[in-house]
Amino acid sequence: MNGAEILVKTAVNAGIELCFANAGTTELPITIAFDSIPGMKAVLGLFEGVCTGAADGYGRMLARPAMTLLHLGPGFANGIANLHNARRAGSPILSIIGDHATWHQKADAPLNMDILSLVRTVSGWHKKNRSVQTISRNIMEATNASLYGQIASLIVPNDHQLEEWKGPPFKKQQFSFDPVDGKTIKKAASLLRKYRKTALILSGRALREQGLRAVAHIQHITGCDLFTQSFPPYMERGVGLPEIERISYFPEPAIKRLSPYEAFILAGTNIPVTFFGYKGIESYLINKEQKTLQLTTAKQNVAEALEYLAQALGSSPRKSKIKSPFQSIQRPDYPQGRLTPEKACAIIAALQPENAIIVDEGLTSALTYYPLTDRLPRHSYMTIAGGSIGYGMPCAVGASLACPDRPVINIQADGSGLYTLQALWTEAREGLNVTTLICANRSYNILFMELERAGIKEPGQKTRSLADLGNPHVDWVSIARGFGVPGIAVDTAEGLRHELNKALSEPGPHLIEMVFV
Amino acid sequence: MNGAEILVKTAVNAGIELCFANAGTTELPITIAFDSIPGMKAVLGLFEGVCTGAADGYGRMLARPAMTLLHLGPGFANGIANLHNARRAGSPILSIIGDHATWHQKADAPLNMDILSLVRTVSGWHKKNRSVQTISRNIMEATNASLYGQIASLIVPNDHQLEEWKGPPFKKQQFSFDPVDGKTIKKAASLLRKYRKTALILSGRALREQGLRAVAHIQHITGCDLFTQSFPPYMERGVGLPEIERISYFPEPAIKRLSPYEAFILAGTNIPVTFFGYKGIESYLINKEQKTLQLTTAKQNVAEALEYLAQALGSSPRKSKIKSPFQSIQRPDYPQGRLTPEKACAIIAALQPENAIIVDEGLTSALTYYPLTDRLPRHSYMTIAGGSIGYGMPCAVGASLACPDRPVINIQADGSGLYTLQALWTEAREGLNVTTLICANRSYNILFMELERAGIKEPGQKTRSLADLGNPHVDWVSIARGFGVPGIAVDTAEGLRHELNKALSEPGPHLIEMVFV
Repeated sequence: MNGAEILVKTAVNAGIELCFANAGTTELPITIAFDSIPGMKAVLGLFEGVCTGAADGYGRMLARPAMTLLHLGPGFANGIANLHNARRAGSPILSIIGDHATWHQKADAPLNMDILSLVRTVSGWHKKNRSVQTISRNIMEATNASLYGQIASLIVPNDHQLEEWKGPPFKKQQFSFDPVDGKTIKKAASLLRKYRKTALILSGRALREQGLRAVAHIQHITGCDLFTQSFPPYMERGVGLPEIERISYFPEPAIKRLSPYEAFILAGTNIPVTFFGYKGIESYLINKEQKTLQLTTAKQNVAEALEYLAQALGSSPRKSKIKSPFQSIQRPDYPQGRLTPEKACAIIAALQPENAIIVDEGLTSALTYYPLTDRLPRHSYMTIAGGSIGYGMPCAVGASLACPDRPVINIQADGSGLYTLQALWTEAREGLNVTTLICANRSYNILFMELERAGIKEPGQKTRSLADLGNPHVDWVSIARGFGVPGIAVDTAEGLRHELNKALSEPGPHLIEMVFV
Repeated sequence: MNGAEILVKTAVNAGIELCFANAGTTELPITIAFDSIPGMKAVLGLFEGVCTGAADGYGRMLARPAMTLLHLGPGFANGIANLHNARRAGSPILSIIGDHATWHQKADAPLNMDILSLVRTVSGWHKKNRSVQTISRNIMEATNASLYGQIASLIVPNDHQLEEWKGPPFKKQQFSFDPVDGKTIKKAASLLRKYRKTALILSGRALREQGLRAVAHIQHITGCDLFTQSFPPYMERGVGLPEIERISYFPEPAIKRLSPYEAFILAGTNIPVTFFGYKGIESYLINKEQKTLQLTTAKQNVAEALEYLAQALGSSPRKSKIKSPFQSIQRPDYPQGRLTPEKACAIIAALQPENAIIVDEGLTSALTYYPLTDRLPRHSYMTIAGGSIGYGMPCAVGASLACPDRPVINIQADGSGLYTLQALWTEAREGLNVTTLICANRSYNILFMELERAGIKEPGQKTRSLADLGNPHVDWVSIARGFGVPGIAVDTAEGLRHELNKALSEPGPHLIEMVFV
């Protein structure tokens, strides 16, 4: 067994089932090991940002890592933007990067690069492998490190992959979160009891079933309100689950909304901040007079902490269930006429199937989707946690491979979608049940909004040209066809209703270009 | 005048005329300054790798920098792979990266990232701007630093862009290379005189008109042979210029070819090394018994050094011209029948117009192009200097904008092309005279070659699937149409001849998918 084989073997033993890869010569021994060692599915992305974004989507869905396999520094660099999103999302990822043979590195061959400096920017755990003998231990250590919700990156030189490894793979180590801190739980309970106007700000595992169940109890007892960040990485939603309000993207409404609260419990997230800094406005959306308490560290399980908090408040979420005020499904009516972003959101909400996975990178076009959908059937919902555009399509690929039986709807801004459009091909090759809804406003619309905020109503020609995706406009139907995905364009509400219904009833990927201009 | 305006003003004063941009909120003041300060053309790329690759192409053509404007760490990260190529190519680039306002950085907002660690990996000069008062000096310093043939990166926080700047822009500083070292020239001359079997290995400015003219003299006097690296960044070629042999990609033929030489002069490059390390083969393609002499440092002008060397040998390239043995154009015949990579290369060589710019990212499909084309009319030729795939289409964009009157032919491997296909849209928007010839072998063919080298004739199913671009195959004609570029597929030599002729005779971009399978 060579180093590549022990690498794959250990990863499989550690519970990793899927690798998103774009490998080159330096990683060939590992791709060969995918054939000789059973248990690892290998999925090709035609660009590394597809691989890393897919691993992010997979990790968000299952809270356990997929592996990525990328080609030296340049290949890894292409994956950084979506690893940045994954890092902000707290996604577990085992990231393997091949490198030149150790003895060849001094020659500074064309592809040679300072990989460690790149890796460091996004990884919670990272190492350069030192010998074939350390591969198995490193893979096990990296996998466990990733389970805290972070990227674990291991650089594996080509010679270590090829050298002979003796002995069994490193044993699976039990993973566990650090124990929840009882004192912090008590403080949180007394804060919620002491103040009249309180809120929880939730993210990470707090927004999954176990956490949300505990949150429902806490809200039931204390009457606290429930918020999440502007861009929650992953949440479970729909009837039976408590309603969670997203904090506004722009700071003025956010500060206004949050200012009446006397105390906040931060559960799986930090104090909310403005997405960009605006002169004269504080970075932090909560002021110093407002009490805040961080419920857990990054190495504790926030869902568990919320259960303890509910218990400390006198409730037991594991034994009883709080009845949500919203038990019946409520969907908007079908709008009609010329398609607008608002009508599109209503139609998606009207048709969204039970158990759907919603990947929302609709940005300015999808603003009205979220408030329309908390009384839909149960579903998963994901947004652009790190703000780096181009996460949507790859994330949809990863989510679909993680949960092949669930329909995925990707609400996709056009400008962002163009960053990682190669994901469509992986959808076609793997026959994924992903419906991509392109929001074709044919501009980086957020920039026009920001220009207006800055008091610029009529930007100059160059500024406009840098925010305008027209001239020529991108024909998404042709692009989808180019990648093997059937596509159609619609510009009426009736057209979208018909085509979305059809796409959801057929297997495999579909793309619908929703033309708003 | 605010910081953004002084930035643009200084860049224009420094001679920069073009910015490849994908800007976001943190860079808006700079895009606004493009409108208020005359002299800077702004070109949108739909992905940062397009912007950086285009700046590379522009820099290779003109040996002076374009500017890139990218959005914080994630935007810069998307541009790194092509900056890696640019770094290896010795391309001058002024790289501007926006960042959060300095006072907002502590809040670690979603897009916040360790930009410096990213920047460091590819930049010869880099700084984080410290105040509005330092912008002008930094831009001038960066531009001059770039002229040595490197990437100069300046991170400019949003508040510095917005703050008021007083006073005139920093004055243009004269740029000059370090003086050539007379002793080294003498050593080189005596080496060429002393040894019977000598060669020059050329890159950088050695492969431009001035350098090649001097090289012709040196060869005429000493009888030395002329080589360049496997992947020369930029060279001028065709009748009247000396013939330069590319060192083979695979090490065995390269070592065999170079082993008879007693001494090498390295002019604008380092000792050639194998692209990847193979067990049992030395990294360096020249052994320790062979003499080598590095003619210049990175801060000296190698073309000038070659002129001095010619003089030291008793010739004067500035006064007289050496008659090349190849003064008449020689083109291959038109092949016929089913299209193959070899036939495609012959047809390109047969039709290539005078003064063409050839961007070769054809990789395994274009192996026969180079040896067929040294007796064509004068042209420029570029290859994938850093080995990071996806350089071709963006490079073609930049080359065409640098030299709008010259036809650009981009010989483009399909797998590599898919990395940065968004460049097609910029070709359409800017109406560029670029003909993209897709080499559709529908695989990462180099991996199959490497597998065969490794003795694996029949790779397993997973290995094959990770190197195979079929199932479904990418329909490039649809993709081109999606981006507004007219496209057509051909699978015969006659078809390619007809379509290439047509594409070259019409203005604007064209794409021809050359189907080899």
